[in-house]
Amino acid sequence: MAINTVSQVVPSPAEDAAALLKAFQVNNDLCQLFCGPGWGTDEQAVIAILARRDATQRKQISLTYEQMYNEGLLQRLQSELSGDFERAMCQWILGPDERQAVIANAAMKCIQEEYPVIIEIACANSSEELIAVKKAYHVLYKCSLEEDVAAGTTGNLRSLLLALVSTYRYDGNDVNMGLAKSEAKIVHEAVRNGTLDHQELVRIVGTRSKAQLKATFSCFKDEHSRSITKALLHASDPTCYLRALRTTVRCIADENKYFAKQVLRNATREAGTDEDTLTRVVVMHAEKDLKGICGAFQKRTSVTLEQVIAKETSGDYRSFLMALLGS
Amino acid sequence: MAINTVSQVVPSPAEDAAALLKAFQVNNDLCQLFCGPGWGTDEQAVIAILARRDATQRKQISLTYEQMYNEGLLQRLQSELSGDFERAMCQWILGPDERQAVIANAAMKCIQEEYPVIIEIACANSSEELIAVKKAYHVLYKCSLEEDVAAGTTGNLRSLLLALVSTYRYDGNDVNMGLAKSEAKIVHEAVRNGTLDHQELVRIVGTRSKAQLKATFSCFKDEHSRSITKALLHASDPTCYLRALRTTVRCIADENKYFAKQVLRNATREAGTDEDTLTRVVVMHAEKDLKGICGAFQKRTSVTLEQVIAKETSGDYRSFLMALLGS
Repeated sequence: MAINTVSQVVPSPAEDAAALLKAFQVNNDLCQLFCGPGWGTDEQAVIAILARRDATQRKQISLTYEQMYNEGLLQRLQSELSGDFERAMCQWILGPDERQAVIANAAMKCIQEEYPVIIEIACANSSEELIAVKKAYHVLYKCSLEEDVAAGTTGNLRSLLLALVSTYRYDGNDVNMGLAKSEAKIVHEAVRNGTLDHQELVRIVGTRSKAQLKATFSCFKDEHSRSITKALLHASDPTCYLRALRTTVRCIADENKYFAKQVLRNATREAGTDEDTLTRVVVMHAEKDLKGICGAFQKRTSVTLEQVIAKETSGDYRSFLMALLGS
Repeated sequence: MAINTVSQVVPSPAEDAAALLKAFQVNNDLCQLFCGPGWGTDEQAVIAILARRDATQRKQISLTYEQMYNEGLLQRLQSELSGDFERAMCQWILGPDERQAVIANAAMKCIQEEYPVIIEIACANSSEELIAVKKAYHVLYKCSLEEDVAAGTTGNLRSLLLALVSTYRYDGNDVNMGLAKSEAKIVHEAVRNGTLDHQELVRIVGTRSKAQLKATFSCFKDEHSRSITKALLHASDPTCYLRALRTTVRCIADENKYFAKQVLRNATREAGTDEDTLTRVVVMHAEKDLKGICGAFQKRTSVTLEQVIAKETSGDYRSFLMALLGS
């Protein structure tokens, strides 16, 4: 469930565009002389406007701003803001499909480390949402997400990631329990012999519906008294394929738990906060399922995500994330 | 290009539905007593109506018929018609997405023989058209085309077919000639050593845009003075994977030539016409690119498709195909 941060009554896009320009120009006359462009921005005003508008409203504001002032809002934000705040706001200003296409493309540059981003985009979206992201990818990069994933990877990791980004899963809730049992057995065989029949593993996680896979994972646990991810710990693999497979299983089995435990907890508890990951999760899920992720986070850490963000971040970046969290 | 067989001025769906019912009931009073249902159908009237309506109009007629007479038009056609004519008309009455989903599902039952059907659906549709077929597959079969293809195949054939039905190709015409050259080299290496690095072959044909692949195939031919399909003839493979790979290359390289030469010519020249294949191509392409296929057919056989159909088929089935061909 999304956290509702949108203002009930909003000004017109033209009024918002004018207010943004004003925020960019605070003290600008003096500052342009002494500090260069961007210094005199009223960041709090920018947050107060944009964090409280939904995707459709933000798109309207962007279009109107460009028509009124003959410059792109995204480009102006890039020149006025900086650091983590700039990166977060520039992701936020994009529509959800375009944003995910941009994030996926950036992850491609270091896919051995960033493969969880690709897995999240492939597995935490519905089939329709994933197609919309892939359509945006075509428009932006004149090629498909599939060919970039395939060209940037090899071996089993390629098979897995390519299957995940390609597949158009059935989104229904129908579950075939007989199939779940027989495929839990196939997974067990594949994991047990240590050599891993990755073809079968990839076929199953890459084609079955999420509801069906949850049933398969559950059958596996009932039968073998441990989860698939635990069982995979004992298999050996020199590449990051097995880690990617465990990430996939976790993301499909329980999205909220995955984002709370595997992503946000790791991004905020280790020495030095991983701001890029924190931004990605908060911005990408703010209008979708952030409430569920926050609930799962609190359950596992006994503190709220707001408390952690307040402690681990600062300045306008903190204000912006807090605004997206509804604080 | 489609052959325009649609009437310029059409009756309302209710008038068409009434005319169809009348065609089903010709001599029915007498026939029901002596010959059972279906015997007294005026097939020529059915053809005259349905072959001259486009997909949207046929859908409207189906809906209206069901509302007016409380029975499905498809079911009534199945009970009134028979043989190849029945199968052709029952495919025709469906919308293009649903029709292809049904045809793909039927091919799944004997995929070692019917894999060309899956390849055609995957490669002769645009990315948007393929997604629409996959959506229809979800609705009809409560599972994805991907999982049925994967579950029904193994080894390299599975990798290839799964890649083809999954991928959401970039549909643009942009071509990277450097990439085409380097991937033509990869294909050459894969084919030359006889063992076939199928992973690379499948990655290339399964992810690149059709425009890019045409350029790659063309580079291969320029460099090695023979086509990829000819080069693949010399590789050995005990399964039908290599044949499927050649079918894929042909279908992507030149759709019209593929349907004319590989599909229609084979379906009509061997001892005994393959009516199922003939029906599939004519019905599936009548509203799309049949004109181009007919042109390619005539170029390669020196006779028109109409002439061959007139010679090789008979009765209502022949009348119906001829009507779809615009005769």
